[in-house]
Amino acid sequence: MDINKIQKILQEFSSKRNWDQFHSPKNLAMALSVDVAELVEIFQWLDNEQSLAQNLDSDSLKILKEELGDIMIYTIRLADKLNVNLEKAIYEKIEINSKKYPVELSKDNAVKYSRR
Amino acid sequence: MDINKIQKILQEFSSKRNWDQFHSPKNLAMALSVDVAELVEIFQWLDNEQSLAQNLDSDSLKILKEELGDIMIYTIRLADKLNVNLEKAIYEKIEINSKKYPVELSKDNAVKYSRR
Amino acid sequence: MDINKIQKILQEFSSKRNWDQFHSPKNLAMALSVDVAELVEIFQWLDNEQSLAQNLDSDSLKILKEELGDIMIYTIRLADKLNVNLEKAIYEKIEINSKKYPVELSKDNAVKYSRR
Amino acid sequence: MDINKIQKILQEFSSKRNWDQFHSPKNLAMALSVDVAELVEIFQWLDNEQSLAQNLDSDSLKILKEELGDIMIYTIRLADKLNVNLEKAIYEKIEINSKKYPVELSKDNAVKYSRR
Repeated sequence: MDINKIQKILQEFSSKRNWDQFHSPKNLAMALSVDVAELVEIFQWLDNEQSLAQNLDSDSLKILKEELGDIMIYTIRLADKLNVNLEKAIYEKIEINSKKYPVELSKDNAVKYSRR
Repeated sequence: MDINKIQKILQEFSSKRNWDQFHSPKNLAMALSVDVAELVEIFQWLDNEQSLAQNLDSDSLKILKEELGDIMIYTIRLADKLNVNLEKAIYEKIEINSKKYPVELSKDNAVKYSRR
Repeated sequence: MDINKIQKILQEFSSKRNWDQFHSPKNLAMALSVDVAELVEIFQWLDNEQSLAQNLDSDSLKILKEELGDIMIYTIRLADKLNVNLEKAIYEKIEINSKKYPVELSKDNAVKYSRR
Repeated sequence: MDINKIQKILQEFSSKRNWDQFHSPKNLAMALSVDVAELVEIFQWLDNEQSLAQNLDSDSLKILKEELGDIMIYTIRLADKLNVNLEKAIYEKIEINSKKYPVELSKDNAVKYSRR
């Protein structure tokens, strides 16, 4: 996935509509949270088993795909506005998590995991 | 960015800790919403101007980078669990948005934009 | 519960700290979303059964109580800033929901319920 | 506002539709976060000034009122399921906040305030 290319497409999209005035990091963070909630909405009354891909109907899967697209768009746009290299941020965070959750202490351990 | 490679690293990370039992799409969506809120928290009392990259202190920028890493990790993991091709989802959503917000009608138009 | 009295206490709290400058409805909505996420965080890796009151440990219950307090505080403050009578809003919404989810069509019906 | 009375109405509402099976604290927390996001959506592209009550159009105010109703309904229902006395939770949290944000240190202080 070419993040720089997507960022250029999004810059052009926004620039054509004169939307940069709305795209402050604050506003983009809000918009991102709204799209994540639309994803959460799909799952709110399901149990864990029902939320598995093979148990979802095609309508839900279609919406989920669109919402994941939106979430990526806003996250990539935010990273652009905040000068964050997303790929580096991912690998650094995986590194941090490896130290935070050592295998031997974290095995099967949801409680520890959930109380960071 | 090699999404497949990152998905493999995350699968291994989770598998070693026996965490797949916790990683239902429902739970991952919740965890994603929590990390987005940690990003929102940075901006909650700032105005739009103060939220611009050049006006943020280095502590905030460091947290933002980590949170963007987390958000990407959960989004990439969710896409894996839901069999969604993220790159395709992004380009398809940009296409949908192009039709939803035609340039001539959307110019400078925050109200229309916000009430979808 | 005397909402007006609580609103006066919150007005005074904010006024003493000169915080009204931060308490725009936009910012209060963000802060509310952050506190709701802190509540969601408690439940993110639990299944529905584990999230029941009788299955939660006393630490989780203590945090949940504090977060419910925070959520009420921000909701009551937002209602004050938006001139919304909360009690009326509740009863009107229950009325709307009664019509939206007629008993005979909504019985046991999670799918319909979740796709509004 | 009679919280006990509202809780009884909500119990009956849910019982008639056989919805208690869906109303685990985990699911209610998710539903609450979705309704808060619908409130956030109204404000996402506005600046602080535009979000003030006197600057909002009547359509936005109508939606905000309904969303505040929904947020209260889910919060009151969650408190019922978690055996939390909401009024007590509010007053205890105000007490905690008084100590956490002493007047002299918190005056005009958004940065301190935002980094808890």
